[in-house]
Amino acid sequence: MYPDPKTVTRVTSLGAGPIGGGWTAHFLARGFDVTAYLHDEAETPAFMSILNTAWRSLTELGLAPGASLDRLRIVTDLEASLEVAEFVQESGPERLDVKQALYAKLGAILPPSVIIGSSTSGLMMSDIQADCMTPERTVIGHPFNPPYLLPLVEIVGGKKTAPEAVAWAGEFYKIAGKAPLLMKKEIPGFVATRLQEALWREALHMVANGEATPEDIDIALMNGPAPRMVSQGQCMAFHVACGEGGMATNLDQFGPSLKLPWTRLEAPELTQELRDRMVDGCNAVAGDNNFEEMVVQRDREIVGVLNALRQVRSK
Amino acid sequence: MYPDPKTVTRVTSLGAGPIGGGWTAHFLARGFDVTAYLHDEAETPAFMSILNTAWRSLTELGLAPGASLDRLRIVTDLEASLEVAEFVQESGPERLDVKQALYAKLGAILPPSVIIGSSTSGLMMSDIQADCMTPERTVIGHPFNPPYLLPLVEIVGGKKTAPEAVAWAGEFYKIAGKAPLLMKKEIPGFVATRLQEALWREALHMVANGEATPEDIDIALMNGPAPRMVSQGQCMAFHVACGEGGMATNLDQFGPSLKLPWTRLEAPELTQELRDRMVDGCNAVAGDNNFEEMVVQRDREIVGVLNALRQVRSK
Repeated sequence: MYPDPKTVTRVTSLGAGPIGGGWTAHFLARGFDVTAYLHDEAETPAFMSILNTAWRSLTELGLAPGASLDRLRIVTDLEASLEVAEFVQESGPERLDVKQALYAKLGAILPPSVIIGSSTSGLMMSDIQADCMTPERTVIGHPFNPPYLLPLVEIVGGKKTAPEAVAWAGEFYKIAGKAPLLMKKEIPGFVATRLQEALWREALHMVANGEATPEDIDIALMNGPAPRMVSQGQCMAFHVACGEGGMATNLDQFGPSLKLPWTRLEAPELTQELRDRMVDGCNAVAGDNNFEEMVVQRDREIVGVLNALRQVRSK
Repeated sequence: MYPDPKTVTRVTSLGAGPIGGGWTAHFLARGFDVTAYLHDEAETPAFMSILNTAWRSLTELGLAPGASLDRLRIVTDLEASLEVAEFVQESGPERLDVKQALYAKLGAILPPSVIIGSSTSGLMMSDIQADCMTPERTVIGHPFNPPYLLPLVEIVGGKKTAPEAVAWAGEFYKIAGKAPLLMKKEIPGFVATRLQEALWREALHMVANGEATPEDIDIALMNGPAPRMVSQGQCMAFHVACGEGGMATNLDQFGPSLKLPWTRLEAPELTQELRDRMVDGCNAVAGDNNFEEMVVQRDREIVGVLNALRQVRSK
């Protein structure tokens, strides 16, 4: 039904904003031919400015063989922009009515074997695909800003999406140099934005209550959790910080602190089932690596990050 | 009353665990003479193992002139460990009764001009200092794990702490190579842990509800918000992501999304006052840097971080 994702060479990116521009730059840097659809010719200068900014960073990260800004084609006719597309990244306006109308058109124009990934950060694919006559191949492919630098893409289908299309998107984004996260369920905010939003709302509460300023919040994050979070997510950070006992020690020892007023968010009940999911999940990620090896690797990565930041900032 | 923090050369670190060990390694790496108090001689091998692991990373980060592991003295008599101390970092067991008893002793033994910083992550200084006869110089100096690598130290006094002692600690930790955050109010979890805990509880909810696995959570964090959060905290990340309009655009445009179920944490009411605090706070941090410069700097730092990680991981 769907072509081998390895064979895709032509991508169409819809949208002239920072997300559409970021995706365009990313796909060009990974060596694809990219057709960018802009609503209006007048958007071209701002769009090219996004691309040129992104290209400097992408060059420093290393371009794929043959990658070139010359392989970009800008088109203002939607149908023409889709003619040779083997994959479509949609980054249109974040309004449900606009997206539904767009997907109605895309569903009629594009052969049903072409997967469409939506960059939406707030809408659900089950809603977006409502008026699409070929909804099986429509998926969420949500990047993190800036999309030309941050590797994450969250992937999830709507009610009418085929599981094969979700799997295909996972493979394709990986081939295209991204870190795909195939979600288990369609939920508002997906995974990363939910986590970020919890942190953000706690920050707003603190500022509202005079407990911290925006500057305080940022000092705390940049110098505290962030350099470690690049190396280990919050689950593995706690797993490794607790030594040999890992996440089991963390939950058994600090479980009661989930009742403490350390945030305005109430924790879930720490049931045996939740405990086991956390412990088993961390053990699965750890695999054969022992505690000592994981500490050493974490520390090497944090040192690398801190030294890199110092180097960039001293220039 | 308190000596010039620049003149401090001798630090006493209390505690044999990962936090006490981490602090000891950090102060040694910054060129201090460090006396480490261990409760029991038998703790020495594990303590030295923490130090040796930390020392490798600290060496790669760059030692201060004259810094040496030879400038460590291990002592198992509390009074003797405090004899020449010009600053004390306390990383004892995280139990209020134990800390209160310890601060009663410290308060009697140490000259009142010696500042005591507590590494506690969950207790309040107003409680810890209850039985201390010289509580004016007792402050929280809460590090982030691993304390020999992550720069953050959150500083706040208790009800009986002198404001001068809090200010002194801020200066001293900065001289000692840390990123001090002087807190506005004494609140449970301080700033960084509150933010981290909100994120952690949202993660637990998601795992409990089968919305994500621990692995999913970590993939999302490591590849999404984390590499950017090293360069910009959440406030400046939103400020810069919104272009020229900055935080004002963010709040005016996305304010309504604070009502959306993007996390289980309800947001505060977005009052005019909260809006202004956020906007003014971000503008103050931005200073004279324009939007374009901040984007370029963010991107350079993210590129540096991603390349550093790739380099470490390829070895």
